Amino acid sequence: PCRDSLDAVRRRDAELTKPPGSLGRLEEIAEWLAAWQGRAEPKIERPLVAVFAGNHGVTAKGVSAFPAAVTRQMLDNFTAGGAAINQICKAHGIGLKVFELALEHPTRDFTEAPAMEEREAAGTLVYGMEAVDGGIDLLAPGEMGIGNTSAAAAIYAALYGGPAARWTGRGTGLDDEGLARKNAVIDAALAFHAGHLSDPLEILRRLGGREIAGMMGAMLAARRNRVPVLLDGYVACAAAALLHAMSPDAIAHCLAGHVSAEGAHRDVLERLGKKPLLDLGMRLGEGSGAALAIGLVKAALACHSGMATFASAGVSGKDG
Amino acid sequence: PCRDSLDAVRRRDAELTKPPGSLGRLEEIAEWLAAWQGRAEPKIERPLVAVFAGNHGVTAKGVSAFPAAVTRQMLDNFTAGGAAINQICKAHGIGLKVFELALEHPTRDFTEAPAMEEREAAGTLVYGMEAVDGGIDLLAPGEMGIGNTSAAAAIYAALYGGPAARWTGRGTGLDDEGLARKNAVIDAALAFHAGHLSDPLEILRRLGGREIAGMMGAMLAARRNRVPVLLDGYVACAAAALLHAMSPDAIAHCLAGHVSAEGAHRDVLERLGKKPLLDLGMRLGEGSGAALAIGLVKAALACHSGMATFASAGVSGKDG
Repeated sequence: PCRDSLDAVRRRDAELTKPPGSLGRLEEIAEWLAAWQGRAEPKIERPLVAVFAGNHGVTAKGVSAFPAAVTRQMLDNFTAGGAAINQICKAHGIGLKVFELALEHPTRDFTEAPAMEEREAAGTLVYGMEAVDGGIDLLAPGEMGIGNTSAAAAIYAALYGGPAARWTGRGTGLDDEGLARKNAVIDAALAFHAGHLSDPLEILRRLGGREIAGMMGAMLAARRNRVPVLLDGYVACAAAALLHAMSPDAIAHCLAGHVSAEGAHRDVLERLGKKPLLDLGMRLGEGSGAALAIGLVKAALACHSGMATFASAGVSGKDG
Repeated sequence: PCRDSLDAVRRRDAELTKPPGSLGRLEEIAEWLAAWQGRAEPKIERPLVAVFAGNHGVTAKGVSAFPAAVTRQMLDNFTAGGAAINQICKAHGIGLKVFELALEHPTRDFTEAPAMEEREAAGTLVYGMEAVDGGIDLLAPGEMGIGNTSAAAAIYAALYGGPAARWTGRGTGLDDEGLARKNAVIDAALAFHAGHLSDPLEILRRLGGREIAGMMGAMLAARRNRVPVLLDGYVACAAAALLHAMSPDAIAHCLAGHVSAEGAHRDVLERLGKKPLLDLGMRLGEGSGAALAIGLVKAALACHSGMATFASAGVSGKDG
């Protein structure tokens, strides 16, 4: 983070026509943008939601309430502008890019084999870095992939300890029987891969999915390119958690956009040291929670940049 | 509320390309808009922040960190476009109207007399009703008035039981000594008016301020004109609390925009039965928290109105 830019924002904030601290986390947001963009006058001119989509072999085990074909159908829906994330991006003036990750080649069923080869995982991670191309100044990585809450839950259990039930949720809408099946499937995977789950990149390869690898790449590239990142929910944070396990500093540029209603996301955010901006009971993915939070970020920046100072507005100061 | 419109929104929501319930409180927002606008297809074309401004005689007792002259200076700042509320309204496409309430005639010091005559309080309440003129379809009443967190705290103590310290906060930034003085002043007022604080309108007259009366009028007129209301923070909710004490139904059309960092606002919202949309540590007033929440409301409505259905997008349904 850029200390000079942070200090500049704090100095200006102290002069704005409001009691010190009265904008709460909006002030924190302005500081975060400045520190990570490395600009004394932070800007958001090209915010982007980057949605990574992949398919999961483990769906064969009945871990989702929706059929695997929905991943492709929803990508077509994104292209046609009909999904929730399209509406939120339009409402808040956010760009949207979709990264389709070999949908015709689902990952392998992770109860029977590693989900990916090493070069698949690594190649997808590198491909995800392209999300920061084009001069974007704020990034929200999102995802689509039927079955991917199972991959995320498996990753959390591997990183933080099991059993699966400690981390899972109902995903797109499992009933009790479906949830029990999902837990059993993930516990079986954890047993199958036992002894090989100490390294975060190996956890990604064995239990993850392409969209999780892609989001990791996007977050890493953003860290290097001075692009602040807003974290989305339960699945997006599996990518953040893997990076965090490699080095907490790898996600220092990330702010949590929202806390999901899915699974143990609140617990995950606490482990990552991130306090969510929004808590609205959402559990959709697609980057939808982070995109909503971009509305807050834009308003926070508008306040910081556009407000008058006590001097310019002729307003008396505190105890004045 | 309009039951038919509510049902229509629920029917459409069930067909949208997302798992049922996955947009969380965004779905609740669409239902709320439909039910109170009485429209099966709710709209937000003319949202308004109405800021009511008044001065308070009790400022003579040193209850604020800022001088009373700041009320007028901040109104000029609103007009010039330099305040936080101007930036948030601009960022989210919200109209802004300021209602100046006899700033040259502060209310009387409520430790020595009722703050207002009956006709002042009633007249201001009626004037506040004009906030809903002009075909607005969403209202966020806000306020400006040095000293008005003392009036709000006194109202809460009168409605829910004292002492003052149970309800007060540091307002614009009191130090410990200032806060102790503020508590003592409010406790003195509660003692002075003891025996006359059973009726909400009499509490308004004795302990309130013109901006609180104005916001009550605006909320009441909105209730009658089918305009949903987003509640702002600590002072705005004193108006809502007085209406609620008259009849809980009087604020049935109100949703809580945010929970303030000031005083016991969280406790007040619980008593009003309102769960805040935002919790960002803000304590500025001006309608700023509610205006930020309008950004969420607009995005919620964009999702409800703009999303494709499973049928139109060719997406397979649950367990499909």
